[in-house]
Amino acid sequence: MNKILVIGGVAAGTTAASQAKKTDPSADVKIIQLENVVSYGACGMPYVFEGIVEKFENLIVRSIKEFDEKYGIKIIQNTEAIKINPYKKIVDAKNILTGKESSFIYDKLIIATGARAVKPPIKGIDGKNIFLLRTFSDGLKLKQDIENKKSCVLIGAGLVGLEMAEAFKKKGLAVTIVEMTDRILPKMINEKFAKIINQHLVENGIVLKLGEKVQEIADFKGKKIVLTNNGKISGDFVLVGVGVRPNSEIAQAAGIKLGVSGAIRVDQHLRTNFKDIFAAGDCAVAINYITGKEYYLPLGTTANKQGRIAGQNSAGKNYMFRGIAGSAITKAFELYIGKTGLSVEEAIREGFDPVEKEIEGVTRASYHPEKKPIWINLIVDKRSRRVLGVQVVGSEFVKAKIDEIALALLLEAKIEDIVDFDWCYVPPTSPVWDPLGIAALQTSKTLYR
Amino acid sequence: MNKILVIGGVAAGTTAASQAKKTDPSADVKIIQLENVVSYGACGMPYVFEGIVEKFENLIVRSIKEFDEKYGIKIIQNTEAIKINPYKKIVDAKNILTGKESSFIYDKLIIATGARAVKPPIKGIDGKNIFLLRTFSDGLKLKQDIENKKSCVLIGAGLVGLEMAEAFKKKGLAVTIVEMTDRILPKMINEKFAKIINQHLVENGIVLKLGEKVQEIADFKGKKIVLTNNGKISGDFVLVGVGVRPNSEIAQAAGIKLGVSGAIRVDQHLRTNFKDIFAAGDCAVAINYITGKEYYLPLGTTANKQGRIAGQNSAGKNYMFRGIAGSAITKAFELYIGKTGLSVEEAIREGFDPVEKEIEGVTRASYHPEKKPIWINLIVDKRSRRVLGVQVVGSEFVKAKIDEIALALLLEAKIEDIVDFDWCYVPPTSPVWDPLGIAALQTSKTLYR
Repeated sequence: MNKILVIGGVAAGTTAASQAKKTDPSADVKIIQLENVVSYGACGMPYVFEGIVEKFENLIVRSIKEFDEKYGIKIIQNTEAIKINPYKKIVDAKNILTGKESSFIYDKLIIATGARAVKPPIKGIDGKNIFLLRTFSDGLKLKQDIENKKSCVLIGAGLVGLEMAEAFKKKGLAVTIVEMTDRILPKMINEKFAKIINQHLVENGIVLKLGEKVQEIADFKGKKIVLTNNGKISGDFVLVGVGVRPNSEIAQAAGIKLGVSGAIRVDQHLRTNFKDIFAAGDCAVAINYITGKEYYLPLGTTANKQGRIAGQNSAGKNYMFRGIAGSAITKAFELYIGKTGLSVEEAIREGFDPVEKEIEGVTRASYHPEKKPIWINLIVDKRSRRVLGVQVVGSEFVKAKIDEIALALLLEAKIEDIVDFDWCYVPPTSPVWDPLGIAALQTSKTLYR
Repeated sequence: MNKILVIGGVAAGTTAASQAKKTDPSADVKIIQLENVVSYGACGMPYVFEGIVEKFENLIVRSIKEFDEKYGIKIIQNTEAIKINPYKKIVDAKNILTGKESSFIYDKLIIATGARAVKPPIKGIDGKNIFLLRTFSDGLKLKQDIENKKSCVLIGAGLVGLEMAEAFKKKGLAVTIVEMTDRILPKMINEKFAKIINQHLVENGIVLKLGEKVQEIADFKGKKIVLTNNGKISGDFVLVGVGVRPNSEIAQAAGIKLGVSGAIRVDQHLRTNFKDIFAAGDCAVAINYITGKEYYLPLGTTANKQGRIAGQNSAGKNYMFRGIAGSAITKAFELYIGKTGLSVEEAIREGFDPVEKEIEGVTRASYHPEKKPIWINLIVDKRSRRVLGVQVVGSEFVKAKIDEIALALLLEAKIEDIVDFDWCYVPPTSPVWDPLGIAALQTSKTLYR
């Protein structure tokens, strides 16, 4: 009987366990999980704070009981894996509530330990009413602790900062975002797009402090005081969202090789340098299918896909994960913001000769009263005419454009393919010339010259 | 000076003229147009009837005056081209108001005569209060003539029938659709999807009579009585939407070859069998880029794209139109209905060995309160694993799925490409496994077995 052990029970871990069991129903599949809950949609947490989703429990896809009774997968909850011995094939673990230690032998191991929110080395960071938001437990604690609070300071204008700014604002809190760099979402969008979103945030009542480095977080009369190089910002609590780091220490200590950003290096079959150890999700690297190089972008889609294949392969299959394009999307009030592929800066770094062309289009026929603006920035390699990436901002249909280009990137499409494919049209869904088609046409014109 | 003459002033004709002038500003560009209006979005007419768009004039993209003064393109309005002499390069025309005849010489001719609504040979079809809806003038007349009318019978459950059913119903009319075949939109969707839409139409108060052939339209006490093989249906007026036919007679009479469905045969450069005569839009064929064969599907997107290239090529360029995938989308109340590529029946006819897999997914994360069902039917060739087409029904994001597959078809994607591409995800735009990804995964599983 194949003993398949999974460390981690969120997206990648539970998907891996389920797929392993499905592939080999005779296997003994166990998950070691740090929390007392598994299989939840962490990306949904902002919507609980906003009130769109009633409670955190609604984010749980499958319960521990369900895994046990319905799928025959045992969850070892409240338990931290503390050591992997890849030669003896044993994982030592400790119950975080009782302190009791135990060991688990395995034939195949899947590491799906995820990533953790970075706690920056700021003076006062460990004070009260300062929060991180990553796990289910983080979410529950934050919700409880901020009840009746009226104002907050969000450190970091990334995905967590923007999504939570909207949620808190819609719940009536005063919200200030403080960001060290001079613009929001620097990895996702260019400066011009960032300005569109800045304005939108300000119009929605968010106080935005860009280019301010937090130096200390102090307490004064029950308030948190965030001191920056430019002044003081006060609020009832502070939420820190400055990025994540892979939980790869346990792997590294076992001699498992790490790759870019300190994430666990895996091959296309999701194997580490030990043939019986797989890794998947936020703790692992992925291949960028445009550059063919290692990339670290911990997102739920990748975790699910990698988990699926790691699970199948641990049970004897040999499927391949073809990688990611760097697709990401977020929402700030009425605007969706998406990216896939390379930015111009990334493209130059990868040796391409890129050109970018930004257009402002509309989402529906010009005479349709519900039309909205949409901004598309396409990046194309001048020499090969290959599409390299796109950034899109708008209040609807943004995902569609990102997905079309993500597919185009996998298929190594050229710019003319985006002009020439036969998109469909009805007035409430686009103009007769779809904005992505217009962007492609405009970009291709810069190449003809 | 290159004399470029265009016959027809709607989508293909005005685009062709504009692009010709843009490509060669010194050219003398003229459009002969049957109506006293040009460059309107005919697809928007249902939204005028529904009241979403205030008036027909809002559908006009550019006026005759604008063409003349801004673009230097002369419109010969209210004029019908009656004869093309391709050897002398002369087009004879007649003013439909004054009867005055005139002739136009050309160096390059672009035929963009469009298509007309078919008037079926039914007894009584020429009676009063029976309408077709194709041109701007049709729209104006219909709007005027049905004011204060309370009920209608729509003959044909195609695009016109469904879109106008919604428009009339939302304006408070009693609406009956009578369709000869046993299901709606037979060219677009399979039987199962048709049933979903039937139910939706009925729930929205539409009376649907399928499999009933109209035998006569009579008058009785101020009402129209539609007699079918199954009974009588009465209404204040009748709208006939049973399909369109290309306006290709003038071309055929001149020795220009016709292709499939009697549409004008053009090569990939939009040239007819006369090297100085181009055709574009609803009067012309297109190549289906999946089969490589001639196809006739007169839609606005194709008209615009063909018009653009015909215009450029008439002014000396040599661009190529790569064809269409058969993409189409329509809306009936809350449901969008889309198709691209081949249906299973079409795929078999083309020599493929297709399999289809229908899934019901949701449009947003499972815990998102605004999620809606979406039905996707993917068609794949068993031997080559090539994607052949898709049909989609749902209340949002339908166009996105159609467009992704339309692009996949141009790039000859295989089913695993649709599983593996890196779609983006945020809870309000999809589940973490996008429904198209699920459809592709399910379809690929049927192939592994």
